[in-house]
Amino acid sequence: MGELCVRSVVVTGANRGLGLGFVQHFLRMPKPPQWIFATCRDPKGQGAQELQNLASKHPSLVIISLEVADPASIKAAAAKVGAHLGDSGLNLLINNAGMVKSKKLDAETLEDMTETYTTNTAGPLLMGQAFLPLLKKAAQGSPGSGLSCSKAAIINISSIGGSIASAFGWDMMQLVSYRCSKAALNMLSKCQSLAYKEHGILCVALHPGWVQTDMGGAGSFKPPLTVDDSVQGMLKVLSSISEKETGTFLDWEGKVIPW
Amino acid sequence: MGELCVRSVVVTGANRGLGLGFVQHFLRMPKPPQWIFATCRDPKGQGAQELQNLASKHPSLVIISLEVADPASIKAAAAKVGAHLGDSGLNLLINNAGMVKSKKLDAETLEDMTETYTTNTAGPLLMGQAFLPLLKKAAQGSPGSGLSCSKAAIINISSIGGSIASAFGWDMMQLVSYRCSKAALNMLSKCQSLAYKEHGILCVALHPGWVQTDMGGAGSFKPPLTVDDSVQGMLKVLSSISEKETGTFLDWEGKVIPW
Repeated sequence: MGELCVRSVVVTGANRGLGLGFVQHFLRMPKPPQWIFATCRDPKGQGAQELQNLASKHPSLVIISLEVADPASIKAAAAKVGAHLGDSGLNLLINNAGMVKSKKLDAETLEDMTETYTTNTAGPLLMGQAFLPLLKKAAQGSPGSGLSCSKAAIINISSIGGSIASAFGWDMMQLVSYRCSKAALNMLSKCQSLAYKEHGILCVALHPGWVQTDMGGAGSFKPPLTVDDSVQGMLKVLSSISEKETGTFLDWEGKVIPW
Repeated sequence: MGELCVRSVVVTGANRGLGLGFVQHFLRMPKPPQWIFATCRDPKGQGAQELQNLASKHPSLVIISLEVADPASIKAAAAKVGAHLGDSGLNLLINNAGMVKSKKLDAETLEDMTETYTTNTAGPLLMGQAFLPLLKKAAQGSPGSGLSCSKAAIINISSIGGSIASAFGWDMMQLVSYRCSKAALNMLSKCQSLAYKEHGILCVALHPGWVQTDMGGAGSFKPPLTVDDSVQGMLKVLSSISEKETGTFLDWEGKVIPW
């Protein structure tokens, strides 16, 4: 297993939960990235205070305003990242921003379905399109012919809730709009892996585990995993995967999840 | 294998292609349904001429205006169907209406993603909600405890294009928005099967094969299956499935397709 060694990374939804956890872990690495681009919807807001504190101490951390449901906002963010990177490319895009509506099947609406899909599925598609030139540049500038996360990769944070094969029964919540959006995100990850392989870009869907975040802890039971454990596990997985794993769906321990 | 014997059926997108094929096969059955509700967006338009001709000859065929992307239109259609059925329920809901945008991954837009998802995924969810009372009534009024399409069922016309496991490479078209919407429809079918089993309603996703329709024949190659062969195969499958198959993804020959 190699060491994850990226020169630049973009993390969406980076102001809290898993996104913030990724940023903290990157900053603490023995060889931290030269650039960590942390995006969130409202960088100036109260919800981004912790990210702001980190950025004031770490010049490598750049906070960028980004709404993943807005194509213009995505393009503007990609331009800003490109300006910072200059002649070099982007190694790692972590599509972490996501949302969930806690509704039973009978209460889901067209608006729930569309909003959840736009953020969880269309957002990662548009992000991949907008950051493709930067990812290609990183792949072209890296030695060797194989795929790796240290070279160029798109990581879509999915969920076992999006595994159709694993949906044997309901948990407390039914989360149909969320499950549908994550199944579609898994398909998108497969499509991205097929389309971007020739450009030297690895693409996977990751299940972070059931994590103690605002989103994971929406029910009445406390999730088993801390953000730290989940992020540490996922980064270990990212350090070890290559072309063999592109287009797969893995959990935070590297186990393959059935579609 | 039993005989498919339904008293009432709703078919969406019934003015052409597979939808029209279903209507024609139901009309030709030895024991045809008492009511065939054929829905389409514009029943008075040129595109519904063949359906109009059939309705003029068959009093059991009722054409109903329905836009599956519009919740109000769905509710109005369900009310009309309920008024025709009176005290009896609806046996079979065939969510056939669908759309495809022929675009490469790099050309997909937020609008493509949202429009395709609304029609192909949210539509079948809303249809299931709106027709649930009528489907429940049919299930309650049928003898026996098992599930069957002659009792009460939701059939979602999906596609092998929505099978993540089967996406090993690109065909001529990449169809990412379509593939994502159909993967999500497969998840919806699984969710519907879990939620509606207790009400006695069977739910499956069906792949009709690659069929000679306007939609299937969008590329430069002629699809191998006629509408007749596909519909005949699917109706044979519907006649044979029971609780064992609810929540699965089958093709027109009854073979299980991996998610």
